[in-house]
Amino acid sequence: MIGDVNLKTLIIVSHPEINNSQTQQFLMQGAKLFDVTWHHVEGLKKIDVDNEQKLLRAADRIIFQFPLYWYAAPAGLKDWEDKVLTRNFIYGDGNDNLRDKEFGIVVSTGMPLKEFRRGGTENITIDQIMAPLRAIADRAKMENLPVFVISQFQYLKEEQQMQTLIDYQRYLTQKYPDTLDNRQEWFEQEFADRLKTLDETNCTECETILNTFIQQKEDLSQLKSTISLIKQGEDE
Amino acid sequence: MIGDVNLKTLIIVSHPEINNSQTQQFLMQGAKLFDVTWHHVEGLKKIDVDNEQKLLRAADRIIFQFPLYWYAAPAGLKDWEDKVLTRNFIYGDGNDNLRDKEFGIVVSTGMPLKEFRRGGTENITIDQIMAPLRAIADRAKMENLPVFVISQFQYLKEEQQMQTLIDYQRYLTQKYPDTLDNRQEWFEQEFADRLKTLDETNCTECETILNTFIQQKEDLSQLKSTISLIKQGEDE
Repeated sequence: MIGDVNLKTLIIVSHPEINNSQTQQFLMQGAKLFDVTWHHVEGLKKIDVDNEQKLLRAADRIIFQFPLYWYAAPAGLKDWEDKVLTRNFIYGDGNDNLRDKEFGIVVSTGMPLKEFRRGGTENITIDQIMAPLRAIADRAKMENLPVFVISQFQYLKEEQQMQTLIDYQRYLTQKYPDTLDNRQEWFEQEFADRLKTLDETNCTECETILNTFIQQKEDLSQLKSTISLIKQGEDE
Repeated sequence: MIGDVNLKTLIIVSHPEINNSQTQQFLMQGAKLFDVTWHHVEGLKKIDVDNEQKLLRAADRIIFQFPLYWYAAPAGLKDWEDKVLTRNFIYGDGNDNLRDKEFGIVVSTGMPLKEFRRGGTENITIDQIMAPLRAIADRAKMENLPVFVISQFQYLKEEQQMQTLIDYQRYLTQKYPDTLDNRQEWFEQEFADRLKTLDETNCTECETILNTFIQQKEDLSQLKSTISLIKQGEDE
């Protein structure tokens, strides 16, 4: 398994026409390479509250993923929230079923990110838009992760789309916070894992890449120590 | 007709169990005394987009009214927004069907108002909660009215409930902004209108009240002129 082996990620996906969404299909392909749970709310025949709450309890990181419709999640996700997130489940009678779990948001927008600010055509920031969702996480005593925004995905060049996908995969599975160390650890694990799944006869090059990566990581670590020593010298 | 005779108010009401909501039933009784349109979205068999857009176009003041569920409107209203407020209707292709109309929000909360602030149990303000809805109004070039909040209606004393109802009626029909002059005008019109509907033989007392009210209004006007003169004297 790639990423933090102990981290169970649940992605609550909301999109009323998910099969027609290039962005969501792309993200789904990316997510499926990892051991995460992809849970599409509009695809449920009926919202079984007990079952949904069981899914939430079993997860360590809960992600709400959706396209932005009128500065909020689609109605399908709100319907799910209104039914599944009962007061008793979240905070009533001393309950705190989601306490200390991580809460993330993956939102895709049709407008460029630069319009989401005062004076932009949207005249409201992504943080302002997400405040009500994050308030739910606060109420549940969860830890809010920074929001992951994907703007105008279909206009990105292929290389940028691939970069977005890797960042998305890290958002789903990498240890938080997003420090250099956690990032390196994630990439190293991913390399190692990919190697295992490749045909062994075909793998000399891959091994080289992995070894180079590990070597670079050690070099970097050495450099950081050196810088740290220089700084100490300056302080004296 | 009571209120501004030229003002057409449309109330888009969202509540999944409106018949069980004492607050909404009370507000409905209050609204029905006025010439406003009460439009309950969960009561619609099907959302007919053309018809809904026609209703919106015909209105001067559009009110969204709902109980607060997880720091937002219920899923029913979001569903209505996602379907009815098409890009083309709101701002696409140079359209601005709702431009210069007034937009208001009537929200009822189960928690006391004082909890809606940093450090309160809700840790988010009503203004922060309503920002996404107001952003829609901004996008449509509408004029945002202050939000009308009703907190813990069922715990209010009867006198406070009646006061809330009158404030609500004013919110629906009184000229904006809520100045003393506009308030006086509203009350005068309401008195006059009520008089007409009462049995004429029964009305001597009412006439007296109305005349007293008008007299008081004139006295107040006189006082304001006097204060204004005194202030001018001070400035010299």
